[in-house]
Amino acid sequence: MSLLRRLPLPDWILHYDRRWLRGDVVAGLTVGVMLIPQGMAYAMLAGLPPIYGLYAATLPLLVYALMGSSRQLAVGPVAMDSLLTATGVGALAAVGTENYLYLAILLALLVGIIQFSAGVLRLGFLVDLLSRPIISGFTSAAALIIGLSQLQHLLGVNLGRSSFVHDILISAVQHLNEVNLPTLGIGVAGIALLLLVKRYAPVVPGPLVVVVVAALAVFFGGLADSGVKIVGEVPAGLPAFGIPGIAWGDVQALLPTALTIALIGFMEGIAVAKAVNARHRHYTVEPNRELLAIGASNIGSSLVSGFPVAGGFSRTAVNDQAGAQTGLASIISAALIVLTLLFLTPWFYYLPQAVLASIIMVAVFKLIDWREALRLWRVDRSDFWMLTATFIATLALGIQNGIAAGVVLSIGVHVYRSMRPHLAVLGQIGETHTFRNINRFTEARELPGILVVRFDAPLYFANLSYFQSQLERLLAERSGEVSVVVINAEGISGIDSSALYALRQFVETQKENGLTIRFAGLIGPARDALKKGGLYEIIGRENFYLDVADAVAAGAGEGQLQLALQTNVT
Amino acid sequence: MSLLRRLPLPDWILHYDRRWLRGDVVAGLTVGVMLIPQGMAYAMLAGLPPIYGLYAATLPLLVYALMGSSRQLAVGPVAMDSLLTATGVGALAAVGTENYLYLAILLALLVGIIQFSAGVLRLGFLVDLLSRPIISGFTSAAALIIGLSQLQHLLGVNLGRSSFVHDILISAVQHLNEVNLPTLGIGVAGIALLLLVKRYAPVVPGPLVVVVVAALAVFFGGLADSGVKIVGEVPAGLPAFGIPGIAWGDVQALLPTALTIALIGFMEGIAVAKAVNARHRHYTVEPNRELLAIGASNIGSSLVSGFPVAGGFSRTAVNDQAGAQTGLASIISAALIVLTLLFLTPWFYYLPQAVLASIIMVAVFKLIDWREALRLWRVDRSDFWMLTATFIATLALGIQNGIAAGVVLSIGVHVYRSMRPHLAVLGQIGETHTFRNINRFTEARELPGILVVRFDAPLYFANLSYFQSQLERLLAERSGEVSVVVINAEGISGIDSSALYALRQFVETQKENGLTIRFAGLIGPARDALKKGGLYEIIGRENFYLDVADAVAAGAGEGQLQLALQTNVT
Repeated sequence: MSLLRRLPLPDWILHYDRRWLRGDVVAGLTVGVMLIPQGMAYAMLAGLPPIYGLYAATLPLLVYALMGSSRQLAVGPVAMDSLLTATGVGALAAVGTENYLYLAILLALLVGIIQFSAGVLRLGFLVDLLSRPIISGFTSAAALIIGLSQLQHLLGVNLGRSSFVHDILISAVQHLNEVNLPTLGIGVAGIALLLLVKRYAPVVPGPLVVVVVAALAVFFGGLADSGVKIVGEVPAGLPAFGIPGIAWGDVQALLPTALTIALIGFMEGIAVAKAVNARHRHYTVEPNRELLAIGASNIGSSLVSGFPVAGGFSRTAVNDQAGAQTGLASIISAALIVLTLLFLTPWFYYLPQAVLASIIMVAVFKLIDWREALRLWRVDRSDFWMLTATFIATLALGIQNGIAAGVVLSIGVHVYRSMRPHLAVLGQIGETHTFRNINRFTEARELPGILVVRFDAPLYFANLSYFQSQLERLLAERSGEVSVVVINAEGISGIDSSALYALRQFVETQKENGLTIRFAGLIGPARDALKKGGLYEIIGRENFYLDVADAVAAGAGEGQLQLALQTNVT
Repeated sequence: MSLLRRLPLPDWILHYDRRWLRGDVVAGLTVGVMLIPQGMAYAMLAGLPPIYGLYAATLPLLVYALMGSSRQLAVGPVAMDSLLTATGVGALAAVGTENYLYLAILLALLVGIIQFSAGVLRLGFLVDLLSRPIISGFTSAAALIIGLSQLQHLLGVNLGRSSFVHDILISAVQHLNEVNLPTLGIGVAGIALLLLVKRYAPVVPGPLVVVVVAALAVFFGGLADSGVKIVGEVPAGLPAFGIPGIAWGDVQALLPTALTIALIGFMEGIAVAKAVNARHRHYTVEPNRELLAIGASNIGSSLVSGFPVAGGFSRTAVNDQAGAQTGLASIISAALIVLTLLFLTPWFYYLPQAVLASIIMVAVFKLIDWREALRLWRVDRSDFWMLTATFIATLALGIQNGIAAGVVLSIGVHVYRSMRPHLAVLGQIGETHTFRNINRFTEARELPGILVVRFDAPLYFANLSYFQSQLERLLAERSGEVSVVVINAEGISGIDSSALYALRQFVETQKENGLTIRFAGLIGPARDALKKGGLYEIIGRENFYLDVADAVAAGAGEGQLQLALQTNVT
């Protein structure tokens, strides 16, 4: 037992509570049953034989269960990573070739190494750069692309491999006369059945039901002879175990795709892990540990001939709702997949591809999030446009460029806003010590000869000229009647060297113009900067006050000055 | 007169004050005399025959005088633009060819169109993205590169066209045995004379003196026969006037260089215009108008066979110190250059190139700013590293990539900082209504059961998880003893939709944990966001207070609540 404690085993193994067992078993079996059809469907989406989806649902689950910080996250093949795999590998090799297979497996290794390295370098904070509107716009567009990419399997025709929505739709219209009606029938019936089960019997695992019914229909109806494409011969047994061969040229070619999957897979996982964790507050989801865990899972996937994996939205939700308390649930799911590989593969022979397509379509179309767009239209117009721009960029520029465009856009907007921060003129509320924005509080009155302003941002290189020009404009509007400017600096969270330099010039110029500048409520970091920059002497030590009321009331050099100047740097 | 007023003429023409005339004439003549040797030197730096520097010092000055918002800025050939021209055009054509000349002139046209268009699109704010440390590190490195690029003219050998410092130095050592001693003598004597004149007779135009002395020395000493390179035959008369031919392929090839010069030339001009304007507060420098003016000046330069121009550091300083009051000074400078072109060009025949190199070296080496680096080391360590990184990046990656690296770096650091903002735990100062950071004010005492925190940043997608984890850490440290959290929100300048969503989850979770969250001093934009996001109801209307003292003192639903909830959006 003391040896066990020395191993880096997860907390839940060392302190397993017997009451968790029932939930873990039920959830593990439920998710395992979901994983069989989903894994095969996502493998098909990735351009691989269906069995590879089951390979990817073995070792990665075990690795995540032992290393991850979330106890409910269900790792395995997911739609987004599969589509990105198809796009990235499809550009380098033809679907169905040995080389395609090899590249997909190598891709999982690269994604794993990138994620694991990022975890070692503690880059987990980067996920914070993805705002909700960006994620939502991107997810909706990607879901649309993924869903439409399955149209060819539903129609039983070849629509090419473009992942642009308009290409797919145009191609579909052009091939409308070639549609295989039995295939279309199976696909549409599959979608209908999935929606019905979900609606009226949500505890029943819909995909499994649909898969069984469809396989039986094909077998007894002899539909394989009517041109319905079936899964066919599936190799039985466990995948080979080993490191894929690494050719440097392939690594370079796969690198952009690997980086994208590493980021997006991690993002999807952490988002769903955090959402589920909001209900289970006895553990915390730690981004850097998540990077290490999902990275190791992807390396594990490549060792068993799998393709890139991530924590998925839908299976995690099911896992949590079915009562999973620890990683044991995932271990049970993986065990079920292993048993399937050993004993059940012959049963997949008559499974029609169209039904796998219908499973993907139902899974992803519910990710198209119109409500979030509507909510943002009401709550935050600029975030609504951010969502829309990311949605359009993803459709127009492709999945990889779409998310990049979203991130650049949201950082750009943030920087632009910080260049034009809120600046308010404050007035006194009655006879109180309270000063508020005169544009919002009708009771607030400006005092004669004194301009009180509040600046709500760190003063730094990109906004200092705006700060200066706004102050000059306010002074000009009050043409020469102002003799004291009080800057409420509570919102100035920092001052950089460029701003110190400009501030020095500004204060000196205003001094020459006979104006006194007083600072009220400067916080620690800003005080430190002014002190180091030698601005205390230039502004005058008597011009610092704890709050606006003091600064306005003071003649010169009184009040709680000593306190305001205190700067114990801790 | 009423017709005159309808023309978009500058203010100073319509209201010219006769008392300005003397200053304008003296300054105009002084700068004109400086421009003759400097223009020729910078043309040589740009890889063009010296006379093209004089062409570029005619029409552009006139255009800027009529359109610019600065009254002292001296436009014309400058070192940085000239070096960038040499690098950019040198990659496409051989120095001395017709094509090189054509490309340099086309480059001026492109730079002008880019700057003018940016002015129309009101992109002047982009200049704010260049922080002082970035500009300083970049300028020092560029000065070093420009200065060393003249080493070959000083030594009288060919060192190739690399603009990497180590290449130039290695090449110089390899060619040390080929040094032409008379050339070196002239160059070193030129540098010494320039430094002496500047030190002991600052009113004397040093470059002119050096040029005259050197030309006389070459003529009377017969030095041209000893291998000293001279300017030689210079065409007399004004440049041809016309639009350069525009080949689309050339435009594409020149575009990256044109964008860089457009940005850097504008930045240099606006920086010096603002610095000079700090002494003349009766007009304002308006970035967008500056873009239009300098853009038109560059278009003007291309019309008279000139290369890209900008507002220069040194000539503007001289112009201002010599008493320039309006653009008339620049018009007089241009007139002096036109007279030179018409009557004085034969006098340039014996001018040694080494003396032009010495003028450039003296002009740029004083731009290497060690003091700013030392100052930053004391004042702002992170800005010191920013300066150093930009300096090294410019030397290692070249001038164009150096400035881009600096901008990306400074925005990256700003974004990273805004992801990890200052969060302080506040304590009460004695029995007062004042609450301050307990780590800085030893008198500040936390109240039992109440955690008061201040967060100094807008709450947005990139920092909300940090905000949440910090709050959770503080609560965990006070293990269960806290029942009320007061968030001093004066520093929260905005809340985006991602943060609203996270805040809703956080407040609901904490409510379930039996914790009350109160907000104190929320400013207008943050109140608007909470209201639109429907968080007033979830947080509870009774949990909003005007300041921390109220929030701490209140039981439930009292105080100046109504006031705090007032949100007249104006």
